[in-house]
Amino acid sequence: SVPPGVLPLCRQLLAWGRAPRQPPGLPLAQCRAFSNNKIMVELDESSGVATMKFKSHPVNSLSLDFLTEFCISLEKLENNRACRGVIITSAVPKIFSSGLDITEMCGKSTEHYAEFWRAVQEMWLRLYGSNMVTVAAVNGSSPAGGCLIALSCDYRIMVENPKFSIGLNEAQLGIVAPFWFKDTFVNVVGHRVAERSLQLGSLHSAPEAHRLGLVDELVPDEKLQEKTGAVMAQWLALPDHARQLTKSMMRKAVLDRLVAHREEDIQNFISFISKESIQKSLRLYMEMLKKKKG
Amino acid sequence: SVPPGVLPLCRQLLAWGRAPRQPPGLPLAQCRAFSNNKIMVELDESSGVATMKFKSHPVNSLSLDFLTEFCISLEKLENNRACRGVIITSAVPKIFSSGLDITEMCGKSTEHYAEFWRAVQEMWLRLYGSNMVTVAAVNGSSPAGGCLIALSCDYRIMVENPKFSIGLNEAQLGIVAPFWFKDTFVNVVGHRVAERSLQLGSLHSAPEAHRLGLVDELVPDEKLQEKTGAVMAQWLALPDHARQLTKSMMRKAVLDRLVAHREEDIQNFISFISKESIQKSLRLYMEMLKKKKG
Amino acid sequence: SVPPGVLPLCRQLLAWGRAPRQPPGLPLAQCRAFSNNKIMVELDESSGVATMKFKSHPVNSLSLDFLTEFCISLEKLENNRACRGVIITSAVPKIFSSGLDITEMCGKSTEHYAEFWRAVQEMWLRLYGSNMVTVAAVNGSSPAGGCLIALSCDYRIMVENPKFSIGLNEAQLGIVAPFWFKDTFVNVVGHRVAERSLQLGSLHSAPEAHRLGLVDELVPDEKLQEKTGAVMAQWLALPDHARQLTKSMMRKAVLDRLVAHREEDIQNFISFISKESIQKSLRLYMEMLKKKKG
Repeated sequence: SVPPGVLPLCRQLLAWGRAPRQPPGLPLAQCRAFSNNKIMVELDESSGVATMKFKSHPVNSLSLDFLTEFCISLEKLENNRACRGVIITSAVPKIFSSGLDITEMCGKSTEHYAEFWRAVQEMWLRLYGSNMVTVAAVNGSSPAGGCLIALSCDYRIMVENPKFSIGLNEAQLGIVAPFWFKDTFVNVVGHRVAERSLQLGSLHSAPEAHRLGLVDELVPDEKLQEKTGAVMAQWLALPDHARQLTKSMMRKAVLDRLVAHREEDIQNFISFISKESIQKSLRLYMEMLKKKKG
Repeated sequence: SVPPGVLPLCRQLLAWGRAPRQPPGLPLAQCRAFSNNKIMVELDESSGVATMKFKSHPVNSLSLDFLTEFCISLEKLENNRACRGVIITSAVPKIFSSGLDITEMCGKSTEHYAEFWRAVQEMWLRLYGSNMVTVAAVNGSSPAGGCLIALSCDYRIMVENPKFSIGLNEAQLGIVAPFWFKDTFVNVVGHRVAERSLQLGSLHSAPEAHRLGLVDELVPDEKLQEKTGAVMAQWLALPDHARQLTKSMMRKAVLDRLVAHREEDIQNFISFISKESIQKSLRLYMEMLKKKKG
Repeated sequence: SVPPGVLPLCRQLLAWGRAPRQPPGLPLAQCRAFSNNKIMVELDESSGVATMKFKSHPVNSLSLDFLTEFCISLEKLENNRACRGVIITSAVPKIFSSGLDITEMCGKSTEHYAEFWRAVQEMWLRLYGSNMVTVAAVNGSSPAGGCLIALSCDYRIMVENPKFSIGLNEAQLGIVAPFWFKDTFVNVVGHRVAERSLQLGSLHSAPEAHRLGLVDELVPDEKLQEKTGAVMAQWLALPDHARQLTKSMMRKAVLDRLVAHREEDIQNFISFISKESIQKSLRLYMEMLKKKKG
């Protein structure tokens, strides 16, 4: 039920269809906008469970390339009858995903902003609307768009490290989470927690995130894989068809809302992000990040 | 405001109008689709409180007969000015109600499915929209449609026995709770708990149900009656008119949604239940239940 | 975005524009419907934080005069670029606000009811939709309309005195909270808590209100000012523009609903309040209050 997007390109070039760990090199000239080295995908055909492991150093930021690869990978799994569930996790220490790549939103053309935003929408439409069981194994910090990925799954397990934080902190950057980020958040934590957290741009430590219901469970790092597998098995014990119809019933209203307002949402993003004041605060934020690293 | 249903039949035959415990035998030929021995109704005119006690052995399953009797009984009380509140409970040990009677959904005609589903809708419209104070005294397990009855009351007290469970477990049977079961559930436990519980088809033990807000209170078995009476008295202390308008304000959106889509919902039920795959999984489930008993 | 109201009158007469503690006497003949001695407003320009302190003895009831002064004060602050946040609290011991002034609803003309109700709506539209950060420092009991004021702020801190209570207790008086009171309440505490609390007309003690999420935090009386200032500083640390857009995104649906049905809501109020049965129960309630005092 996901509407046609910009992303079903290069699909036929992907070689990892039936769980090959190392896709052969792609003819890059034919696939400019795409790289397949930002996410490692493994499918265990015996259990029907795939793992998507983000490995885009240094912080798994959601660039256009990353989003494109994410969507193609997810679509491949969605269409693969051997795959019933996906675990989403990170191969980068301490970071699940840092969220939308700010460089994609700074000093670029209107066309680029449109393409980028459409890819962000596409990612969410496919993940939130996925027919597969989706479990986020949040093994590091997960601000903004990284949090959205976790929120869009069916279940969230987070490593109990209090240094890891998660939240929709857009307001801290002077920007505003779009309505469908908000809708997804409200569906998980309720209106009041969302209202306060979004206005403050809060990043919640793992224990606090658990208390608020933003994540379902905390585990020690060394138990994450075992626990994630157990949760996935519990969800896969249900008949697919009934589970999928139930999931769709719960999420349809919110998915339909973006589908109905997709172009408008892109125009809103472009006009907001093109403002000089916003560009300035994003540049300041990026400089702050660079200094932090240095 | 409940729309005209199929059920105002045989009403005039009912003899228990003013709290007779033992209705006289009915001329069965005149009342084929109806029996009045599945629910015991007592009205205490001094307090204005009626008790509807399910006594349809072995498991108080919601057959067409049961639903018809339930609706007629409720309508009688609704129209009786001496009655301001209803306590719903079970006379069958360990079971509140096992939910919709699967035999009504297996190997029957399209007409039968339509009649049955309309009776299920009618039951919910009357109970969720009742002007009376409704308290569920859940003294046994209460899966699926049994859980819906409890969710549709104003207040839920459950016996704290951890062996008693409650939940909308339709997904376990390979079927899907209809949208108005879901709406009722979301209104009680919120979107997130409902999404997870419905997808997993969870049956929650009494303590867990209390933690999730699915029931309001747990009591030891021997305190159930006393506590139920005290809660009812608390609710009846409010002026009826203000309380009824407030209740209607809270529930109207969800009630109106079924009223607006009632025929469509019946057609959906028929086409879903008529599928060979669904019929097969219901037959398997019934065989499993029979073996369990054996 | 607040629609034009009845209240932008006498505005030019107000002398406290830039934080004067003692507004000069007003030529009363020119400003019949208005008094500016019910709320003390102070603006600290260094922090950008104003305090609105209710000082309308004996119980800060929301009379037409009080509401008018409240709206004018709020509008002044809203339009003052030096003001970014407002703390709402009481100068009357043990009472935050007792809610709508019942004398305005008893034995008056239809025109008076209309004017009064429009002022109640206006107060809520301005406060719930305020661009400023609004923090309620609830230092006393806060039933009905007093609770609504607290619910409409961004954050609620209550003195932990268990004798102080808060809630939408309209049902206790035989009247019904309007739909936008209900919407505001549901946005804070969720559907289930609201449904139960509104039907029972519950007044929750401070600890219970905190447990239900009706207030965000409890503090000892002597810490209230310090804590309120700290919370305000936390909210003001966010860039105004992003915070305001986020707040509007969260509250717009509910605000729009009243704007769309404003005249209808006034007519409903008039026809409800004009009923002899309602007038009678309000008179009884007022007599009870008088006896209590005596």
